[in-house]
Amino acid sequence: MSDAKDNPQPERTDINELGEFGLIEHLVQQFELRQPSTVKGPGDDAAVIDNQDGLTLVSTDMLVEGIHFDLMYTPLKHLGYKAVVVNLSDIYAMNARPRQITVSIALSSRFSVEAVDEIYAGIKAACDFYGVDLVGGDTSSSLKGLIISVTAVGIGQPDKIVYRDGARVGDLICITGDVGAAYLGLQILEREKRLWLENPDIQPDLENQQYLIGRQLKPEARKDMIELFAKAQLVPTAMIDVSDGVASDLMHICKQSGVGAILEESGLPIHHETKMMALKFRVDPTTCALSGGEDYELLFTIRPEDVDKVKYLPDIYIAGEIVPAEDGIKLHTQGGRLHDLKAQGWRHFGKEQ
Amino acid sequence: MSDAKDNPQPERTDINELGEFGLIEHLVQQFELRQPSTVKGPGDDAAVIDNQDGLTLVSTDMLVEGIHFDLMYTPLKHLGYKAVVVNLSDIYAMNARPRQITVSIALSSRFSVEAVDEIYAGIKAACDFYGVDLVGGDTSSSLKGLIISVTAVGIGQPDKIVYRDGARVGDLICITGDVGAAYLGLQILEREKRLWLENPDIQPDLENQQYLIGRQLKPEARKDMIELFAKAQLVPTAMIDVSDGVASDLMHICKQSGVGAILEESGLPIHHETKMMALKFRVDPTTCALSGGEDYELLFTIRPEDVDKVKYLPDIYIAGEIVPAEDGIKLHTQGGRLHDLKAQGWRHFGKEQ
Repeated sequence: MSDAKDNPQPERTDINELGEFGLIEHLVQQFELRQPSTVKGPGDDAAVIDNQDGLTLVSTDMLVEGIHFDLMYTPLKHLGYKAVVVNLSDIYAMNARPRQITVSIALSSRFSVEAVDEIYAGIKAACDFYGVDLVGGDTSSSLKGLIISVTAVGIGQPDKIVYRDGARVGDLICITGDVGAAYLGLQILEREKRLWLENPDIQPDLENQQYLIGRQLKPEARKDMIELFAKAQLVPTAMIDVSDGVASDLMHICKQSGVGAILEESGLPIHHETKMMALKFRVDPTTCALSGGEDYELLFTIRPEDVDKVKYLPDIYIAGEIVPAEDGIKLHTQGGRLHDLKAQGWRHFGKEQ
Repeated sequence: MSDAKDNPQPERTDINELGEFGLIEHLVQQFELRQPSTVKGPGDDAAVIDNQDGLTLVSTDMLVEGIHFDLMYTPLKHLGYKAVVVNLSDIYAMNARPRQITVSIALSSRFSVEAVDEIYAGIKAACDFYGVDLVGGDTSSSLKGLIISVTAVGIGQPDKIVYRDGARVGDLICITGDVGAAYLGLQILEREKRLWLENPDIQPDLENQQYLIGRQLKPEARKDMIELFAKAQLVPTAMIDVSDGVASDLMHICKQSGVGAILEESGLPIHHETKMMALKFRVDPTTCALSGGEDYELLFTIRPEDVDKVKYLPDIYIAGEIVPAEDGIKLHTQGGRLHDLKAQGWRHFGKEQ
């Protein structure tokens, strides 16, 4: 490894060396355009997209350092990947297909060109995996920290798009994959960070927790489910992605649909590693599932007559039923009790530092 | 004014009182949807837009406190307005029409609900004036300061969209309105800020500079020009909006079109108040025009045979000619000399504070 010998320090190129336009060019040149609908990608005032065969969907999300991620334990590549995935997840949650994204990024001079490259390597990995084009964006300075704002543009068929307001009394509540793991992954990372801050000689012990940590640092959007729905000719009546936790997200569906819900605690899909780690942290696994968030699974409702279609699809769990609004939104516990569901947010608007 | 008596302090509602979802609802309820193409606005995972009659355009820009604006002299309402306008300007610069926007905003707890309301009042004013719909977005905390990211979605006709790469040798270079004023408006605001910081008893003296300050704080996008082009059946060969200064923006056109340019100093449209204030600040008005930026005027090229169409349109100035790439990008001064044009950026990637 003569390279390492000649240059023992990792490279660090100051962003000012490239300038804003140089940085954009440098970042964008690695992306190829693969969507036939992409008429014009980055490099003009606006991207141009030809969407003649359906409805255009637009979704946007912003990730802020210190609020949504902590760079002490978030690899930059994973961060770029996740910033894209959370937006694609919103388009899939409409039963539609993302095709293009724009990425705006603001960062302080603490970040080198190599650091930005890492973020964009993650963005590119997500574009490659999900088959979407990067078609534009903006880079700018920030006074403090890193902010990434992604907008996803997708396409959907008018009779296939699923909103949050379509749940009807008698519909079944379904959840894909498993929920609660991303939250516990975050708790592990936060615990190791605290231990390390107390004693930097201690090496973090993350090796046995790859599943939970992976769910936090590298979530995936359920593109596969949307494809399965199409094959099974299943159109959910309402759908949302689980970003704030099953409780909060189910309440969005109920509120917009004007209905209530009974969620079965026994029906919540919780991974066995989530259960084990919840015990270690002395938290209730159900609470992790209901209030943890960041799972990016799909929470949706189906007509009762579609239950057979769902039964033969992998990785979908029936977890409750839609009831009249006056019956409220309840959790039916494994002990047989009915509790009001509460949307507990983990995040607050933070004090300026 | 019994209200003022009973409640002498301006109201201040902590954002935590509303919560994230409450805040979004609160902000969005004042916006009406007026575009027939808006199938679904805010409140679901993604907005849904029906764009069957043309090409979809997407543009995005992020404004960061301390980098793009200073809240010491930027009214929040103006900031919201400007955040929208700079994005719409990008769509107009493609000879297309914006129809929808999404707005993501991150802010620290230093901002009250009333402050956010002011920003959204400006966003709404821009939506009303330009006839676009707010169809989605995201609100989140920030550790420091205010960040606004806007994405505009527009529609264009395939044979009417104007890119940056269409300028050909012999084409004429045109500029709308006047350039350099926004930069001097900023210099006035910065000067008054410095004076005020030195002696807070001194009242800022801004009254006689409404034109220049207005160009900085409340720019407009040239929607009117796009409408005039359509009426005159004029399709520019290349176009960009003047956000970084005429020099930098012309160089974008030249680079992407593979051509050179001779810009006539005498042809640069500079407002008389810009000239007067440049003298006071002892800067060259031409430098303000070339490197100032933030004018949001249109810089475009036309075929020589279209010159008669432009002659009869108001507020358009012919300021030069496209030449072969090997002739370079030059300024032909009023003194008869030829200088290389330089793209001077005013912004740098700032040090973390």
